Amino acid sequence: MTNTSVAKWDVYEASLAGPAGGNPFLDVTLDGFFRQHGRVVRVPGFYDGGGVYKLRFMPDNEGEWSFSTRSNVAELDGKSGAFTVTPARPEVHGPVRVANKFHFAYADGTPYLSFGTTCYAWTHQPLAEQQKTLATLKKTRFNKIRMGVFPKDYPYNVNEPLHDVYQPGADGKLDFDRPNPESFRHFENQVKALGELGIEADIIIFHPYDRWGYCDMSEEQDYRYVAYLTARLAAYRNVWWALANEYDFLLDTKPLHQWERYFHIIEENDPYGHLRSIHNGDPAANYDHRKPWVTHVCIQNWDVKRTPEWRADYGKPVVNDEPEYEGNIIQCWGNISAGELTHRFWTTLMRGGYAGHGETYSHPQDLIWWAKGGELHGEAWKRIGFLRDLLEEDVTHGLEPIERATGFPWNRISGARDGDVTYIYFGEHQPVIWAAGLPQDDRRYAVDLIDTWNMTVTPAKIVPAPENHPTRHGAIVRPRRPDAAFAVELPGKPYLAIRVRPLD
Amino acid sequence: MTNTSVAKWDVYEASLAGPAGGNPFLDVTLDGFFRQHGRVVRVPGFYDGGGVYKLRFMPDNEGEWSFSTRSNVAELDGKSGAFTVTPARPEVHGPVRVANKFHFAYADGTPYLSFGTTCYAWTHQPLAEQQKTLATLKKTRFNKIRMGVFPKDYPYNVNEPLHDVYQPGADGKLDFDRPNPESFRHFENQVKALGELGIEADIIIFHPYDRWGYCDMSEEQDYRYVAYLTARLAAYRNVWWALANEYDFLLDTKPLHQWERYFHIIEENDPYGHLRSIHNGDPAANYDHRKPWVTHVCIQNWDVKRTPEWRADYGKPVVNDEPEYEGNIIQCWGNISAGELTHRFWTTLMRGGYAGHGETYSHPQDLIWWAKGGELHGEAWKRIGFLRDLLEEDVTHGLEPIERATGFPWNRISGARDGDVTYIYFGEHQPVIWAAGLPQDDRRYAVDLIDTWNMTVTPAKIVPAPENHPTRHGAIVRPRRPDAAFAVELPGKPYLAIRVRPLD
Repeated sequence: MTNTSVAKWDVYEASLAGPAGGNPFLDVTLDGFFRQHGRVVRVPGFYDGGGVYKLRFMPDNEGEWSFSTRSNVAELDGKSGAFTVTPARPEVHGPVRVANKFHFAYADGTPYLSFGTTCYAWTHQPLAEQQKTLATLKKTRFNKIRMGVFPKDYPYNVNEPLHDVYQPGADGKLDFDRPNPESFRHFENQVKALGELGIEADIIIFHPYDRWGYCDMSEEQDYRYVAYLTARLAAYRNVWWALANEYDFLLDTKPLHQWERYFHIIEENDPYGHLRSIHNGDPAANYDHRKPWVTHVCIQNWDVKRTPEWRADYGKPVVNDEPEYEGNIIQCWGNISAGELTHRFWTTLMRGGYAGHGETYSHPQDLIWWAKGGELHGEAWKRIGFLRDLLEEDVTHGLEPIERATGFPWNRISGARDGDVTYIYFGEHQPVIWAAGLPQDDRRYAVDLIDTWNMTVTPAKIVPAPENHPTRHGAIVRPRRPDAAFAVELPGKPYLAIRVRPLD
Repeated sequence: MTNTSVAKWDVYEASLAGPAGGNPFLDVTLDGFFRQHGRVVRVPGFYDGGGVYKLRFMPDNEGEWSFSTRSNVAELDGKSGAFTVTPARPEVHGPVRVANKFHFAYADGTPYLSFGTTCYAWTHQPLAEQQKTLATLKKTRFNKIRMGVFPKDYPYNVNEPLHDVYQPGADGKLDFDRPNPESFRHFENQVKALGELGIEADIIIFHPYDRWGYCDMSEEQDYRYVAYLTARLAAYRNVWWALANEYDFLLDTKPLHQWERYFHIIEENDPYGHLRSIHNGDPAANYDHRKPWVTHVCIQNWDVKRTPEWRADYGKPVVNDEPEYEGNIIQCWGNISAGELTHRFWTTLMRGGYAGHGETYSHPQDLIWWAKGGELHGEAWKRIGFLRDLLEEDVTHGLEPIERATGFPWNRISGARDGDVTYIYFGEHQPVIWAAGLPQDDRRYAVDLIDTWNMTVTPAKIVPAPENHPTRHGAIVRPRRPDAAFAVELPGKPYLAIRVRPLD
């Protein structure tokens, strides 16, 4: 028992000495029972190699805690300890949860607007490259990153990983009954480093881009892997569980019932209830995110104006993690322009969803951000950071599409409200005047014109709403446009937005 | 009997004197029976005012023809005549038909790639403005125009029409039992003028933007109107029947069974079988174009990558007549950028459909092309003309999407073939190298790079297809990329296309 105090939402870790012989990964069971007042939290332990067993616990309440252990091995059974939980450190808000049905918030109630990026295999690159990735992330405004436990085999990704995730067996091949603790320790350190940067680690548990055999582990090995991963990582507050990148491309070796069991194993072993989702490859192969073990929708789809459909289909927060990547490589999912990715972020946010970034510019050494991290070469990331900063100025509830998001005119123009602040994003539309969605009452408002590419916010010119004229046979002529008390004059170019805030 | 000869696919017109008293529109029936060899074609006649009745006939075969009449009025019954049909004039190819399931061709087999525009009420504007419209059309490459029989009441459209479509009754209101022949004669003259410019007249029979009462005609009056229109106009080779602009906004006064009857009245009275379709307002309210009386799909939808879905849904040519208009007005359907409309044309064509143009730039006198015609102020029309000219260089069958248009990568990138010519349109994608969809064989090809905005065609740089690498666990490594014999180097910017033609 090394620690005697730990801050709320940090990791309390207990190490215990136990047997090193046989296969401890298979043979030894260990659970910790953490108690405060009448409350008991079961925490699965894990073998960390070299005869060392660990329990990790993320306390969510200040004060005195104690724990005891249960094991099928005498040396590990009936151990106990106690520690003090101090207030959370500054900038630590706890794990992210679903809030307001379609949105997220940290455990302390601070709203969380998800602005993610993607570096699938960054923890498997040379250490100097990993340092670069963290340095790059620090200057961006991303607050989530998608990253795989396993290394990646794919065009531009032919290097060997820093660590194998399993230990070699007697035949030199990986022994999928023996995880490699060194690999996991490294992975955890990087999850922790991300946490210190305020970045959620969206941990991809399975993916199809493999030459080492991870895709061909047996069903039982898969289940043990998921349980081991959960035992090691659940105590990190910034963990999200992404069951797969492109699960539908893995159905040949992992049929659907296994995916349900993976979810259940996490539910049974993650006492903190971290966010859980799963990501499709083919846009027609979305997982059924209505299933109760899925906390939010993870999706790959470029047709971002359909975001309100996905909200309606699943009734959960929608995170479109792959609305295609900014870049110029030969692969069709990795070569949209910076302007287009910026546009897809705005469109997604202004329809009540969240979008994910990735960058895939061709590089002479194949150092491409989307898989390896390193450096960013594009332009969208700055505009995405601008969007995050802008929205966080006023965030209260999260962005809800204006009125009937699938009806006129909000099926064509994107608009949303967060509390009493209204945003309208015109995208490829370029009206010289706009009224729909503007306030109908007589309060005073400040209206700003936002250039989403040039990242400027300037006061917009207010003009009277246009004269009314019936727009259909039988329509009633009202004395003024019924949908706004005023209109906004615009410069008649695309990719602009307006923001309307009440002045009093 | 004035004419004694007429060219194939021109209009043969016979005038007959008959009663002018009572209401000839209601009281008198007249049919012509046009004969050549054993063939008989029934042609409905119509009252043209002033005691004059007419039969119009478009012959589709050269040689001697004769006709006789049948009427419930003795003066018009049993009349007969004969005339000679000479070869079609140069540039006259006959009416447009469906060809190759998803495409169109003129009656003489010449392929017809539809590049339409929209001037809803141009024939109701002052005559000088109408002359401008025809002059503008002459310099564009549009070969179809959507235009209403009735005038339009709508924002920017508050002027009175040149002619009322019906005659005033004793109470000063329009008498919907008495069409105004002067109005129809003017309309026909403009249909004919369009024909001389090689432009199909996509005649909109009903629309909801009305203050004169046309939307509130009785069911019987509607049926008589459709029959009268058909009798007058069917003999013009360049007529298409568009039953409505936005029929779903008219369902309050014209329920669905009436629409079916309108179609049937046209079928019964148009002996030439001109193209028939009907256009929706709400994108979720497409008419069921599978119905056998619909010849092709007419649609309003901005989500143009879905074109292959509509082809699959209906199994007919898809004409997306409103993928939104280039412009800057307050209405959300009328303010996309020129670049965006050009992009939507390319995307639609490269997915096996046809698109329609409209222009809605704010104008101090409200002279807006989309409703009034006049002059064009935008930029898309030139790029659309460039696209038509480009495709007509090689047209044989019409553009068919490459392989599985809803599958990878053709759900993201747009590509199509016409005969042995391949086109790939990258749109918002900007790869620096591309291989998918390029030829797999060892023939020699000419490959051109097309800048869709700057309207340039230049030879593309051919490079070896990239080294193969398995892209998924269990994938077989082949010695070269299986999907192309070579690759194309590209400048890494959006809105480019390539064209691949065999050299021998």
